[in-house]
Amino acid sequence: MNRYLEDLSAGEKFETAPYTLNEKEMLAFAHQFDAQPMHIDRAAAERGPFKGLIASGWHTAAIVMKLTAEARFLGDTPVLGLGVEGLEWPKPVRAGDTLHVVMEVTKIRPSKSNPGFGIVSFTSTGFNQRDEVVFIARPNVWVPRRPQDETTTLVTGTTQ
Amino acid sequence: MNRYLEDLSAGEKFETAPYTLNEKEMLAFAHQFDAQPMHIDRAAAERGPFKGLIASGWHTAAIVMKLTAEARFLGDTPVLGLGVEGLEWPKPVRAGDTLHVVMEVTKIRPSKSNPGFGIVSFTSTGFNQRDEVVFIARPNVWVPRRPQDETTTLVTGTTQ
Repeated sequence: MNRYLEDLSAGEKFETAPYTLNEKEMLAFAHQFDAQPMHIDRAAAERGPFKGLIASGWHTAAIVMKLTAEARFLGDTPVLGLGVEGLEWPKPVRAGDTLHVVMEVTKIRPSKSNPGFGIVSFTSTGFNQRDEVVFIARPNVWVPRRPQDETTTLVTGTTQ
Repeated sequence: MNRYLEDLSAGEKFETAPYTLNEKEMLAFAHQFDAQPMHIDRAAAERGPFKGLIASGWHTAAIVMKLTAEARFLGDTPVLGLGVEGLEWPKPVRAGDTLHVVMEVTKIRPSKSNPGFGIVSFTSTGFNQRDEVVFIARPNVWVPRRPQDETTTLVTGTTQ
């Protein structure tokens, strides 16, 4: 079932499945996109402030996207980001960590430029297996309004 | 040569090398992290608002990280993000696009909690081969202060 702008309400929360990051994929991402010592060089990382290898923050962000897309909280409606108001990585993510994400709807408004859509603001919080917050993002997402031919006869045209 | 907090000034710009995204890696990233129709399903993407496949915004972000890390604008000093104040994707990125990034220093301040470091705010702008802006981020980055044993004898202790 697809969910539309009219189906969401501020304060509503969605929780994703968990995902465990393994070291092989952590290193592969880092070599491809963020080949800095704290992400790829075990010895240097051990001597550094994190006392071991940590995931690139952009890998964590990509895993949060993966979990969010797979949760399909809008059904078949794609999650299309308009932008993100802020990103934080309060704690490092390491190989073996199991992450999950809670998305909370914080604001819903119709689009001024595109009457078929609205913009929904979320706070997307990533937790590890100790329930420590490792990632916070505040994305704004395009969400389509319910198409008129899907409205029931009980709903008048005022919802459009 | 390493560069430290004292070597940076507001308004200073760094430009990265260019990078051309190919379709194979674009699809691989999307299948791994953002398997939505506009990123993986050519026929659905052709019918959609972008008239063809587009890169996941998180893939673009990861490529910007790659270009930034490889530019080594602080020398051996790692670029460690504290957070990002905003992310925007004003235009889609497609396979075959050649991206480069311009990073501008917007603000420099010493850390209150960690006297060996400062926090540098950048605006990081990604351009395609038509000089269209495809990505804007405002990261805050930890940058170490110059270690005392590297200061010249002409510089007094007041820089610390």
